[in-house]
Amino acid sequence: MKSSIVLLSGGLDSATALYLALSEGYQCRCLIFDYGQRHRREIEAAKKIARKAKCAYSIVKIALPWGGSSLLDKKLALKPASGYQGIPNTYVPARNIILLSFALSYAEAIGAKAIFIGAHAQDYSGYPDCRPEFFRSFGKVITTGTKAGVGKRSIAVRVPLQNKNKSQIIKLGNKLGVPFELTWSCYKGGGKPCGKCDSCYYRAKGFKEAGFSDPAKR
Amino acid sequence: MKSSIVLLSGGLDSATALYLALSEGYQCRCLIFDYGQRHRREIEAAKKIARKAKCAYSIVKIALPWGGSSLLDKKLALKPASGYQGIPNTYVPARNIILLSFALSYAEAIGAKAIFIGAHAQDYSGYPDCRPEFFRSFGKVITTGTKAGVGKRSIAVRVPLQNKNKSQIIKLGNKLGVPFELTWSCYKGGGKPCGKCDSCYYRAKGFKEAGFSDPAKR
Repeated sequence: MKSSIVLLSGGLDSATALYLALSEGYQCRCLIFDYGQRHRREIEAAKKIARKAKCAYSIVKIALPWGGSSLLDKKLALKPASGYQGIPNTYVPARNIILLSFALSYAEAIGAKAIFIGAHAQDYSGYPDCRPEFFRSFGKVITTGTKAGVGKRSIAVRVPLQNKNKSQIIKLGNKLGVPFELTWSCYKGGGKPCGKCDSCYYRAKGFKEAGFSDPAKR
Repeated sequence: MKSSIVLLSGGLDSATALYLALSEGYQCRCLIFDYGQRHRREIEAAKKIARKAKCAYSIVKIALPWGGSSLLDKKLALKPASGYQGIPNTYVPARNIILLSFALSYAEAIGAKAIFIGAHAQDYSGYPDCRPEFFRSFGKVITTGTKAGVGKRSIAVRVPLQNKNKSQIIKLGNKLGVPFELTWSCYKGGGKPCGKCDSCYYRAKGFKEAGFSDPAKR
């Protein structure tokens, strides 16, 4: 059975990427990161999603003590969706590069053929590490810098939602049976979604445009 | 003052890279990794070298529970220098990619302009993640996937020892005043260097060819 590593954040994008990988017949091992994010609640969500999908998961704890992001530093305000130009201050320096590197190490050690990540079009309007050109560069790192890559069996970085917006992802996830009720998106990570941060904003907009009600809404 | 992150392992290559960066006028912050390596002793060596050079250092602890290397798994024998073809089993899946990713995150968060790594010619005869083409690919990851890289001030990956062999590095380090007596190379990480592993073998050969005696020899 072909094997893959799935980066699972606990949000709806990566959950959809997981269910897509499963639908393609991959055996999936989920990699969940505890990197000091203020919305640590997403880690619990990710665990529940992995269990629901009957997939093994590992939690990797890493420290990024140098900060540089409002997702890591609670003293920095989360800038609202409409209040900025360019790269949001929720950008975490080199985060996806770090996450992919660990997934790559895992994939190489166990002989997995693919890494799935749920990055998509709306992300890469702001985050540089969600853009197609970044993923292409990372692919080149694999073929030049790993034993698997320079050998006969390389590892593919799969970004299946790359060209989709949130409502398209929600429609796709709905078809695939993604347990959206278990997902967590809010950056604030309080008891309830704040409804104001970027992540809440795009989630609500996505469900509205897809014509579904959000099953996680309490 | 221009600032840099130096990946410091505790071995003589990275110590030389540090002293080279200092000689170029960089303010250096050393990044030391505790990644479960069997030669944990090198971490203590790295700390001593950073202190000697009067540089700040951070120790980053990461877990690579999937193993896949004789440096991580003591049940695997360290293959001797002449006993293999191709990539040694001391290769740790995606290790340098992970290390560089953390250095990149740190550099981006504090606005450092460069990352120094002590990889060199003898390494890349075996390790894919020490080859020039890998570092070029990683450079492309920075320019496509980070805020610093897509903006006006990117971050350079500096591999100043790339084309040098061990004896050339030792000669250079000697000129720069590298405290070789504090460095640790042996993969086994026992009380004394084993004298048999790849790392001991190349160190001894390097000192012999450079015409120096190894000040760490007890």
